Amino acid sequence: MTSGQQERAAWRVTLANVIYNADTPAGRLFDLLLIVAIVLSVLVVMLESVGEVRAGAGPLLRRIEWVLTGLFTVEYIIRLIVARRASHYARSFFGIVDLLSIAPAYLTLFIPGAQALLIVRVLRLLRLFRILKLARYLSEASVLTQALRASLAKITVFLAVVATLVTVIGALMYVIEGPPHGFTSIPTSIYWAIVTVTTVGYGDIAPKTPLGKGLASLAMILGYAIIAVPTGIVTVGLSQAQARQQSDTACDRCGLSGHAPDARYCRRCANPLPQGDRTGAATPPSLGMTGEAGEGQKG
Amino acid sequence: MTSGQQERAAWRVTLANVIYNADTPAGRLFDLLLIVAIVLSVLVVMLESVGEVRAGAGPLLRRIEWVLTGLFTVEYIIRLIVARRASHYARSFFGIVDLLSIAPAYLTLFIPGAQALLIVRVLRLLRLFRILKLARYLSEASVLTQALRASLAKITVFLAVVATLVTVIGALMYVIEGPPHGFTSIPTSIYWAIVTVTTVGYGDIAPKTPLGKGLASLAMILGYAIIAVPTGIVTVGLSQAQARQQSDTACDRCGLSGHAPDARYCRRCANPLPQGDRTGAATPPSLGMTGEAGEGQKG
Amino acid sequence: MTSGQQERAAWRVTLANVIYNADTPAGRLFDLLLIVAIVLSVLVVMLESVGEVRAGAGPLLRRIEWVLTGLFTVEYIIRLIVARRASHYARSFFGIVDLLSIAPAYLTLFIPGAQALLIVRVLRLLRLFRILKLARYLSEASVLTQALRASLAKITVFLAVVATLVTVIGALMYVIEGPPHGFTSIPTSIYWAIVTVTTVGYGDIAPKTPLGKGLASLAMILGYAIIAVPTGIVTVGLSQAQARQQSDTACDRCGLSGHAPDARYCRRCANPLPQGDRTGAATPPSLGMTGEAGEGQKG
Amino acid sequence: MTSGQQERAAWRVTLANVIYNADTPAGRLFDLLLIVAIVLSVLVVMLESVGEVRAGAGPLLRRIEWVLTGLFTVEYIIRLIVARRASHYARSFFGIVDLLSIAPAYLTLFIPGAQALLIVRVLRLLRLFRILKLARYLSEASVLTQALRASLAKITVFLAVVATLVTVIGALMYVIEGPPHGFTSIPTSIYWAIVTVTTVGYGDIAPKTPLGKGLASLAMILGYAIIAVPTGIVTVGLSQAQARQQSDTACDRCGLSGHAPDARYCRRCANPLPQGDRTGAATPPSLGMTGEAGEGQKG
Repeated sequence: MTSGQQERAAWRVTLANVIYNADTPAGRLFDLLLIVAIVLSVLVVMLESVGEVRAGAGPLLRRIEWVLTGLFTVEYIIRLIVARRASHYARSFFGIVDLLSIAPAYLTLFIPGAQALLIVRVLRLLRLFRILKLARYLSEASVLTQALRASLAKITVFLAVVATLVTVIGALMYVIEGPPHGFTSIPTSIYWAIVTVTTVGYGDIAPKTPLGKGLASLAMILGYAIIAVPTGIVTVGLSQAQARQQSDTACDRCGLSGHAPDARYCRRCANPLPQGDRTGAATPPSLGMTGEAGEGQKG
Repeated sequence: MTSGQQERAAWRVTLANVIYNADTPAGRLFDLLLIVAIVLSVLVVMLESVGEVRAGAGPLLRRIEWVLTGLFTVEYIIRLIVARRASHYARSFFGIVDLLSIAPAYLTLFIPGAQALLIVRVLRLLRLFRILKLARYLSEASVLTQALRASLAKITVFLAVVATLVTVIGALMYVIEGPPHGFTSIPTSIYWAIVTVTTVGYGDIAPKTPLGKGLASLAMILGYAIIAVPTGIVTVGLSQAQARQQSDTACDRCGLSGHAPDARYCRRCANPLPQGDRTGAATPPSLGMTGEAGEGQKG
Repeated sequence: MTSGQQERAAWRVTLANVIYNADTPAGRLFDLLLIVAIVLSVLVVMLESVGEVRAGAGPLLRRIEWVLTGLFTVEYIIRLIVARRASHYARSFFGIVDLLSIAPAYLTLFIPGAQALLIVRVLRLLRLFRILKLARYLSEASVLTQALRASLAKITVFLAVVATLVTVIGALMYVIEGPPHGFTSIPTSIYWAIVTVTTVGYGDIAPKTPLGKGLASLAMILGYAIIAVPTGIVTVGLSQAQARQQSDTACDRCGLSGHAPDARYCRRCANPLPQGDRTGAATPPSLGMTGEAGEGQKG
Repeated sequence: MTSGQQERAAWRVTLANVIYNADTPAGRLFDLLLIVAIVLSVLVVMLESVGEVRAGAGPLLRRIEWVLTGLFTVEYIIRLIVARRASHYARSFFGIVDLLSIAPAYLTLFIPGAQALLIVRVLRLLRLFRILKLARYLSEASVLTQALRASLAKITVFLAVVATLVTVIGALMYVIEGPPHGFTSIPTSIYWAIVTVTTVGYGDIAPKTPLGKGLASLAMILGYAIIAVPTGIVTVGLSQAQARQQSDTACDRCGLSGHAPDARYCRRCANPLPQGDRTGAATPPSLGMTGEAGEGQKG
């Protein structure tokens, strides 16, 4: 790793510290300026979409937008040059986000209206977690992601069942209510079924016939009840992820395990606990979205 | 079991391996073709229900539909012939699904419009879980089903209470608001109560009088609060189902299983427990929907 | 108790067995007839509320209704006479329900339209739990009620906070949006706030101004997030209620507790467990709604 | 503390007991009168906002309102004078609420219509928890607040993700559906996204195009699934907060607390733990909103 660092010229290391490392004063300043620019550009994109504002300050907003896009483009290129492995950064979560947050601006040269997509710049704000050194938040986030990853299989099963369910319910409603009552096609009916099972209930389409209302009632109660399943899955996953964070050491004498992370003696037999193999808790957070930052810290 | 296999002619065994066994190359190929056909037929059914599409490609879609229905019919018959016990397959989850996914096509000869029911073919896609050898998903699914089966009684009680609740609330609203405000009858009012308590809230029917709004508010807060009950039920059920998977060691002497993770002696006969083989989770998945597959693997 | 029984004439005991005791053949028959009558009367009440049906079969339905009301009245009087303590039955859950399910019929003599209230007869169906000897369901229900009673205080706090919240949000929206946008008064705005925070969302009233939409968004996210609180409360309450059902015995030698209900030896040190004080699990279900049944069984 | 009390004149102590201490008869009477006044004033504010009522009893209500405002102003001043530390009371939760609940009345002299804000007086009712000596409720509330504070970081992460999500979804829908279908601007689209993801679903804005409906369906299922996350977070937090309450014994030697329920020796210094005083839950409630009350009790 450090060998990889020596290959790089001094100025690249300096720049890398400024861009990727939020610990140095220069780095912190750069990050703060970056956040300001991002927030500003997101606001500009939002305001520009509002008719009244566009009518008045349209050209101004467009100009600001282009300036910011230019800055972000330069920043992106510098990040590519400075990164230890450009490809690694380009494929990292933030690498892609950084690219996506400038691409639409150039797209507008060909497709007008695409600048609304510049809103993805909001994703860049996730950097805040790193910049504000919210290690605590990151570790919490890692607990969350661990829990979700652990329950991914269960959630997939759940979603597959829900998908099958709404398809069948939608088709049935299409047969029962039919086009005259707004269920113009099976896809539309499936859309209605999703709106209903997820308890969103827009009301733009609603059953009219008694039979349709009966089936709809079943769908609602079903959706109302099965929301319990993902909740249960995630809750169990979370409690396990947290439990894992706690110590797994077992007492040599009485074999009792499940000691608190800071335990030195067995809480039952007062036997000194083996202090070495303390896995868990100290695991570094891996949000899978720290981009080059991870390397920067390692270097 | 194997004795049962010898009774069958060689060609039947071969076919059975192709149809029911996803391990052989032939079997995998067959399964993939099947999935393609199912997805295609589901798309056809959906597209056909869309007015614009039907206007243009109606006859074509109808023809594709009939071809696929023919293939599925042949497949169903072969499955019946090849299965070790035809009745067993016919009564299995997939046996019924396979029948339902061809029946509507023939129904259309007498009842026009019934082909929308062909959408149930989507259920056949659940085979994917088996084909993609998602044993992991199956075991997860078995944990889910175990948890749900364990909490079935509680959920029944819960649903009975909810059913009683919406009936009474519905009748009260019928008395309070009455036909002029859309509560045209008690069944309609009960439908409204379900829409409200499940927090779906279409808004096609809504209380107008202050008293009605008051009762509706109570119903909403009630529904908002009692969603906690099924969630709690399922969560507790899930955590227990998982815990059960984690300690499956059985006592050598009395065969009692379900010991605590830190158990060293059988809680019934005080016999030392085998400490080595502590591999839970290895329990075979039993989704109750593997149809003939189960036998195919046993054979 | 049995002394109380001897005071009663033989015929009263016989009748009590028929009416309150579902174990004897006569009792079972009586209960089944009762259920049929209840379901029938509920259906009649519902049908009568449907305009088309009333137009056609109104008089007939009315006649059936009066017959059933007469039968229920007789039944109620007999229950009063036969009960060991009439007052005890009259004040029991089912005693009140039985009265409520005949009162409205007589009310209609003075207040037309009150017969819709006869729908409360549906509550009588809760008897099914007892009749079908769903002891298992009753015990599950008791676990549920235990859990809910245990978390009652927490839920009260939660509801108080929610009530305060919707009041303040409602008033703010009344100031922001005002009558022109449908927020005609503070009570109406509070009603809107409840509809929003509970995520029901009828859409009959919706914010129009940007500021109003902003506040509404906050209210939604708030409601979306705090639904987690009652769920957490009930889940924790449930898991504790179930844990309580499991044994509380502690090993005399090593003091380890939390043994399985059927444990005879300490799972760690193989020391015989004290078998005497096994509380929990065996606790009889007490749904607080078995009415006279409790006594009938004791007698 | 008691020294602080001696500095105060006798009459101030007496008044403090009446105002801040609900234990003395005088104090209880004062508190009850206060509650009545608060409820009355809240009702007045509500009624005044109802057009029909204002038309009739407008002037009367306004007069009552001013009288109550006067009383509350006097009360606030007395509280300031009597409080051991005026600044402490003024900055306490109830101190701010008391001020907010009189300020709007005087604001109306300049800004008409501001009296609707007087509704914040409802917050004063939270005093009920203290007055009714609902220590139990307070401790429950403290468990809740502990749990929420513990999971604050996780919930922040969750809300940040949701905020990013709705922004991106909103912008996409703005591009897909656009002004003609009601998605008049990105902020409006974000508002729609929040309405959808939180499953509120007003239906005032709804997607019309197939693509829009598809994205909306994804958003709904997403919102339907991720509601599980805060629920899981709070549930785990709650169960831990309760567990913490259950073992609050502190080691005599090193003072370390938070030992496991079955702990016999301090896990840090191996000192035997006091086994007798195992009364959890007795921890004093700290809702952070008892205002001066805390001091009054200490005094």
